[in-house]
Amino acid sequence: MPKNKSAENPSKNAAWGGRFAKGPEASVAAYTESCSYDKALYAHDIAGSTAHAQMLGKQGVITSDEAETLVKGLEVVRKEIASGVFEWKEALEDVHMNIEARLTEIVGDVGKKLHTGRSRNDQVCLAFRLFVSDNIREWLSLTHNLIATFVERAKEHKDTILPGYTHLQPAQPVSLAQHLLAYAFMLRRDYERMQDCEKRVRISPLGAAALAGTTYDLDPAFVAKKLDMYGVFHNSMDAVADRDFLAETLFTASCTMMHLSRFCEEILLWANPAFGFITLPDEYATGSSIMPQKKNPDVAELMRGKVGRVYGSLMAMLTTLKGLPLTYNRDLQEDKEPFLDANTTVQNSLILMAGMLGALTFRKERMYAACKAGFLNATELADYLVTKGIAFREAHHITGTAVALAEKKGIGLEDLKLSDLQSICKDIEEDVFAILDYKAAVLRRNTHGGTGPKSVEKQLKDMKEWLSSH
Amino acid sequence: MPKNKSAENPSKNAAWGGRFAKGPEASVAAYTESCSYDKALYAHDIAGSTAHAQMLGKQGVITSDEAETLVKGLEVVRKEIASGVFEWKEALEDVHMNIEARLTEIVGDVGKKLHTGRSRNDQVCLAFRLFVSDNIREWLSLTHNLIATFVERAKEHKDTILPGYTHLQPAQPVSLAQHLLAYAFMLRRDYERMQDCEKRVRISPLGAAALAGTTYDLDPAFVAKKLDMYGVFHNSMDAVADRDFLAETLFTASCTMMHLSRFCEEILLWANPAFGFITLPDEYATGSSIMPQKKNPDVAELMRGKVGRVYGSLMAMLTTLKGLPLTYNRDLQEDKEPFLDANTTVQNSLILMAGMLGALTFRKERMYAACKAGFLNATELADYLVTKGIAFREAHHITGTAVALAEKKGIGLEDLKLSDLQSICKDIEEDVFAILDYKAAVLRRNTHGGTGPKSVEKQLKDMKEWLSSH
Amino acid sequence: MPKNKSAENPSKNAAWGGRFAKGPEASVAAYTESCSYDKALYAHDIAGSTAHAQMLGKQGVITSDEAETLVKGLEVVRKEIASGVFEWKEALEDVHMNIEARLTEIVGDVGKKLHTGRSRNDQVCLAFRLFVSDNIREWLSLTHNLIATFVERAKEHKDTILPGYTHLQPAQPVSLAQHLLAYAFMLRRDYERMQDCEKRVRISPLGAAALAGTTYDLDPAFVAKKLDMYGVFHNSMDAVADRDFLAETLFTASCTMMHLSRFCEEILLWANPAFGFITLPDEYATGSSIMPQKKNPDVAELMRGKVGRVYGSLMAMLTTLKGLPLTYNRDLQEDKEPFLDANTTVQNSLILMAGMLGALTFRKERMYAACKAGFLNATELADYLVTKGIAFREAHHITGTAVALAEKKGIGLEDLKLSDLQSICKDIEEDVFAILDYKAAVLRRNTHGGTGPKSVEKQLKDMKEWLSSH
Amino acid sequence: MPKNKSAENPSKNAAWGGRFAKGPEASVAAYTESCSYDKALYAHDIAGSTAHAQMLGKQGVITSDEAETLVKGLEVVRKEIASGVFEWKEALEDVHMNIEARLTEIVGDVGKKLHTGRSRNDQVCLAFRLFVSDNIREWLSLTHNLIATFVERAKEHKDTILPGYTHLQPAQPVSLAQHLLAYAFMLRRDYERMQDCEKRVRISPLGAAALAGTTYDLDPAFVAKKLDMYGVFHNSMDAVADRDFLAETLFTASCTMMHLSRFCEEILLWANPAFGFITLPDEYATGSSIMPQKKNPDVAELMRGKVGRVYGSLMAMLTTLKGLPLTYNRDLQEDKEPFLDANTTVQNSLILMAGMLGALTFRKERMYAACKAGFLNATELADYLVTKGIAFREAHHITGTAVALAEKKGIGLEDLKLSDLQSICKDIEEDVFAILDYKAAVLRRNTHGGTGPKSVEKQLKDMKEWLSSH
Repeated sequence: MPKNKSAENPSKNAAWGGRFAKGPEASVAAYTESCSYDKALYAHDIAGSTAHAQMLGKQGVITSDEAETLVKGLEVVRKEIASGVFEWKEALEDVHMNIEARLTEIVGDVGKKLHTGRSRNDQVCLAFRLFVSDNIREWLSLTHNLIATFVERAKEHKDTILPGYTHLQPAQPVSLAQHLLAYAFMLRRDYERMQDCEKRVRISPLGAAALAGTTYDLDPAFVAKKLDMYGVFHNSMDAVADRDFLAETLFTASCTMMHLSRFCEEILLWANPAFGFITLPDEYATGSSIMPQKKNPDVAELMRGKVGRVYGSLMAMLTTLKGLPLTYNRDLQEDKEPFLDANTTVQNSLILMAGMLGALTFRKERMYAACKAGFLNATELADYLVTKGIAFREAHHITGTAVALAEKKGIGLEDLKLSDLQSICKDIEEDVFAILDYKAAVLRRNTHGGTGPKSVEKQLKDMKEWLSSH
Repeated sequence: MPKNKSAENPSKNAAWGGRFAKGPEASVAAYTESCSYDKALYAHDIAGSTAHAQMLGKQGVITSDEAETLVKGLEVVRKEIASGVFEWKEALEDVHMNIEARLTEIVGDVGKKLHTGRSRNDQVCLAFRLFVSDNIREWLSLTHNLIATFVERAKEHKDTILPGYTHLQPAQPVSLAQHLLAYAFMLRRDYERMQDCEKRVRISPLGAAALAGTTYDLDPAFVAKKLDMYGVFHNSMDAVADRDFLAETLFTASCTMMHLSRFCEEILLWANPAFGFITLPDEYATGSSIMPQKKNPDVAELMRGKVGRVYGSLMAMLTTLKGLPLTYNRDLQEDKEPFLDANTTVQNSLILMAGMLGALTFRKERMYAACKAGFLNATELADYLVTKGIAFREAHHITGTAVALAEKKGIGLEDLKLSDLQSICKDIEEDVFAILDYKAAVLRRNTHGGTGPKSVEKQLKDMKEWLSSH
Repeated sequence: MPKNKSAENPSKNAAWGGRFAKGPEASVAAYTESCSYDKALYAHDIAGSTAHAQMLGKQGVITSDEAETLVKGLEVVRKEIASGVFEWKEALEDVHMNIEARLTEIVGDVGKKLHTGRSRNDQVCLAFRLFVSDNIREWLSLTHNLIATFVERAKEHKDTILPGYTHLQPAQPVSLAQHLLAYAFMLRRDYERMQDCEKRVRISPLGAAALAGTTYDLDPAFVAKKLDMYGVFHNSMDAVADRDFLAETLFTASCTMMHLSRFCEEILLWANPAFGFITLPDEYATGSSIMPQKKNPDVAELMRGKVGRVYGSLMAMLTTLKGLPLTYNRDLQEDKEPFLDANTTVQNSLILMAGMLGALTFRKERMYAACKAGFLNATELADYLVTKGIAFREAHHITGTAVALAEKKGIGLEDLKLSDLQSICKDIEEDVFAILDYKAAVLRRNTHGGTGPKSVEKQLKDMKEWLSSH
Repeated sequence: MPKNKSAENPSKNAAWGGRFAKGPEASVAAYTESCSYDKALYAHDIAGSTAHAQMLGKQGVITSDEAETLVKGLEVVRKEIASGVFEWKEALEDVHMNIEARLTEIVGDVGKKLHTGRSRNDQVCLAFRLFVSDNIREWLSLTHNLIATFVERAKEHKDTILPGYTHLQPAQPVSLAQHLLAYAFMLRRDYERMQDCEKRVRISPLGAAALAGTTYDLDPAFVAKKLDMYGVFHNSMDAVADRDFLAETLFTASCTMMHLSRFCEEILLWANPAFGFITLPDEYATGSSIMPQKKNPDVAELMRGKVGRVYGSLMAMLTTLKGLPLTYNRDLQEDKEPFLDANTTVQNSLILMAGMLGALTFRKERMYAACKAGFLNATELADYLVTKGIAFREAHHITGTAVALAEKKGIGLEDLKLSDLQSICKDIEEDVFAILDYKAAVLRRNTHGGTGPKSVEKQLKDMKEWLSSH
């Protein structure tokens, strides 16, 4: 149902109301207001305004007394909001006008000087960049934590063997450590992408003013430094017109959620009794209102489903940006909600995945049993034939024939008689049976990045160093 | 920042809590709850439950006294919620459990019988289908209203002439009525798409139970009829597993928003002083915090920008549905928020566009003046040459040469001397100048669907009939 | 690598070359040409031109001799293209110019009269609408065929029982027929969506000319009738500016591919040895270059993956249309490739899915064995308790306790002693064991749409009628 | 229409054909083959194979003679393909099998040893990563070139003044240099994003084999170094299962195309006679088949439209990756076409945009004239009032009143009498008129990043350094 908010003559208060005969209708105010969601940025707006006021004072654009008054007043407002006593007025459109209006109530007319040398265009963008950046830093921390959890569980399961799948068909036995580390390395790339992105986000646009820069003698670098930012915008028109930093942020979120969706899929498969590789902790499962026996992996399902909304946010932002001429267009107000939604999803998903993964029980015996089905030692036989001087493509054909024979007999390759094997290829000898052992197949894959224990140890060491240096 | 809601031992109340040693952690409850947004469906859930209770009574699954008690109790709950006195408990997960729990408080143990023969899977889907359908009906009404507004404005501007553009270059003069009617016909197709879609939405899934149907002797058709639905599901597994009806709904929303974004683009162009074709009503414009002279078409900008979030919702739903095995998976809980968001956007946009369009002032003189630039009568010259027996492709070349000459002289085609024209093509005669009149060009295009007044009258008549029959 | 096609002075031939001093550079020609892909529309362009020529003749805009000459010439061109002897010239930009140029070579200057009263804007759109519509009709036929295949396989498996899943956890036993029919009904909705869509596609835009209609006395309805179309455009500006018909077509394709991706996921699960519910026919599987034992369900994987490209095409079209002002903009040339790609994918996928499904071997004994795991009769126990007068929510709790007990003992519910059951709820009696039989659970669900044999028969009958009437 | 390729018993040749009774049907082969498009990767596949062969020789897995034979043979194949004499066989499925089959024809059985220690999973991924990386390097070069073109044109137009727009309304006068530099800085971020991405793309997966690593004593680092790659995969399962590198590549492409679409929109506006800010070079414009006067900016339109297909490719890849379990799944074959399509679009668009921008004629006088409309000096008046000690918010209100007065009189602010101005605010003095000069407004904005000439010079210097160091 449409929002149908009333707003008593909002143009009276609005920052731009000077030349308008009538204020926008209530439904227009409801359509264009952002206060209902950009409240979330209040602390970042106040931080930006504080740095701006200090800079104005330092540069002599306002007196240092005025600057001090503004800074103190902003701190009062901040505390009012943090403690919940602040009274939000939707008629004031957004978080920024609410704060400035209250500031002026507190400090008097000097409050109006805060806006000197800036515009809402650069002010909002500054607060938003700080907000996004602080949240990406939270993502980094949560991703780090999840990587650490994958590494921790991998350490426990260096000797746990399960089928490695390609095409969802059993392919070769691997260690569970190797499997879990695959996700750790995916997430490490996500971490690096977030870092690369955050460097482009935490750049100050303050000083761009409406679009053309300002005539006041400002010091944008001072503001950026106060706010712990990496640098300052280069071009005022670009600074207020672009949101590529947000599209990139939403892409990194999409990529991380995509990776999580893949592990969710595996949790769902593994929790199915046909696999039975894991037992889900009660805290991460729910029951059914009609089927009393059910233990449903709802968290993993929802997390897989939620990748949709994050892709959707990315697509929303890219669509909104398509074909916009310079500079600021109101379309850009549509930048906040996709981020707020993706932010909640990414943070909660990283937290819950770490919790769920940490609490999973891996059922080693079920995993090992699954190796026995599926001829997981077929590659070993082929490789063995190569050591006997047979070209790999030939060895592959010979093994295929042996698999067909074993399948027909309903047994494993290791259960074929030597004579059977020799009837297929006379170069096969008694030593083949050592080769066909499942654990041996894992043990032998110690080249760089492989599933063998030495390789896994190397990966764990690499990860340990990375985790402690990030 | 992640939601981090506390929830005191929710498993105690949850419908599925029987065999669980521990309840899900608070963060899990916050991740999986839907109450914060599916409250919006309360009236539709109660309507569905009421029909279900009546059917259970009619079929003798419960007594008619029990049925009556349930129906009365549900009405009490409905009034409590409608009046705002209802106390929502997030620990009860969703709107459905909240209602049932309160019902049982009111009517006692018989309240627990309401769930007989159904599951949350079919119950939720029923409420959602009713909710979506009722909202699509609202879309239909708002679309109808917007079409009527386009038609109304078109009627006023049958004689207003402006440049028709292709490639955003002036092409041929058209009437403003023709231009506005183009949008009316686009929206009429949207209307028909919504109708087609709504027929697939308003189908009852009740009786599918969890996934396999039920053992009770239910009468799904009775429920569907009570709820004014078009029919009943065919297959229980399909009924609880699929959400194609929602993807289609979101597509129709995307299509409508796409059409609105196109007219927004035109409003933005026309409001720019270089065009100056319209004056925006104050109610639909806002000012600038830094530039006192600005009158910004924010509503049109935001509406153009909001097409992004609706495309995003469509993509979210399609992504979520990709590759889901049968039957219900918790991923499907992600169906509600994309719809709720798209619904708000579509309804508000249709309302505001009608309001804005109705209040626009069209500046006829500016539109006519724009025709004079851009050789808008060039096609007329070409067509004239064809009447002289010249093949069209040839006529086109001759006219191109005439345009090049006029451009060089800095005048219009109508300002060239007859001798100049004849030097290019000797078949041109004095009668050419009547042809080169801009209004005449419009007047002559009376074939079906063209911009000529007879054609426009025919379109208006067609629209009048359509509007009164829909 | 960028296309870098050479094009010798294309402006000489291009239809619009009159006033240009220089032709576009070769790289521009390569960027803007469409001939490399719109060749696919040749037959539809010729059909449109033929009808246009006949109409011009009938209306006396050209003589009937001229009309006949054009029609015969067009047929010659059609045959040249169909037989592969036609020489395509990229310098002529698109399929339409190639055909007209060749026509003029064949019939002489009268060929230039073909373009009378139309523009490339309406001409291209006509050919494209015919092409899309003809292909949707092919989709309809292929979807019909796939539905018939699902129905056929369902008929064979009315008595085959497998676990029905919710949350990918075993929930209740269902018949394989019911499971397969779920897809049949999904696809039936796709069929209906395609039909609804095709009615909006197969509408003639001819007569809209460039944007404003034409001054010639055309008869658009005659053309539409000749081409077996449902009707004629209403408004010339709309007719050349909009492509909602294609966005809708791509949505229906997305929806169908989404449904196919879901069955693909199930094929992949069922082909995994842990499930082992199916044996893939050799023709629809491939092997591994390194693992000789592998039988990979590549077709199902690729088909699941290809849903991405169809969603991508939909998103591409919606993005392109966002914010375009009236009327035709060259951006719209980007309509063909998304359709061509989606069309190939949809048609091939429908064909291969029918082939693969028809050739699958269902392993009944594996399916039945899977029912025994997972307490698939728990709902039966709860329902049984309700028949003893216990409210459903209570019965659910009691059953949960029984499941916990059986799980602890490592047995099924049916293996618990009566005394055990009675210790949980004294109302349980000897008759409970008949209830706990898996097949009985299926047999009892005969209400509308349920998995019981009577319901399945009803669904099959409904489908049989639908198939023969569509 | 569906591909319906015949393939004579392809399983005979396929690498995995050992245990299959029947080969896949022709339509399956057509559906699963990739040769028709992955041919593009031939040089990169051969480069990868060459490095692999050399490494096998160095490690003693094959003899150095064998290695040399393979390397020489691969070079022969490369030349055959490069010169066009190579005979592609679709029955061999993909580029990799085609090359290996031909290699074996040339060098005999030793050709089969090339595949030792690798799988198609790591082989294909290696070739693809090299191919993508090489193309990103091309993007970098083309982006660099386009940035240089923007900078070049900016240098020419330091003194050209045009209206800067917000909300597509004239806001403040800016220099054209500042406007063009905004795009240069956007593209510089794109450049940096591509660089960050390319570092993650050009990582060697060779040695991951099918999924678990290999038992041969390989040296993956040697291969990576030979191929000028940044490093080696960490985990074999991750190496063959993930495609995040491609999603990131497609995101960078989307971001760049989004930026180009914005400048296209401006070209389209500026080429419209109402603006008339530019004259399009004939080479980048086309005409109309029906309207002889038209000069259509087709290249800019198409480029704006093509952003859709690149977004679509990104969405396609993200959709395909959603929810895929480890490790390689055939779905991943869908990675190549989205990249190939996006690659063509991005490269051609970067080339054409540089060409078009370089050839644009900017009409300075039209730009200056546009400044005079729209009260572009209103901010100056407000700032002037602040220098008189009035708070900014007050100054804004006063100026609004002055604008309303001037608008009513139909004149500019600079045309108001001093007495009129003083009637609004008595602090206004004679010196106000110097302030109201349009050029002066630009000249005064010399703070960091502003539109003033000193700031623009600083930006140009920064860009010059960046261009020469990148």
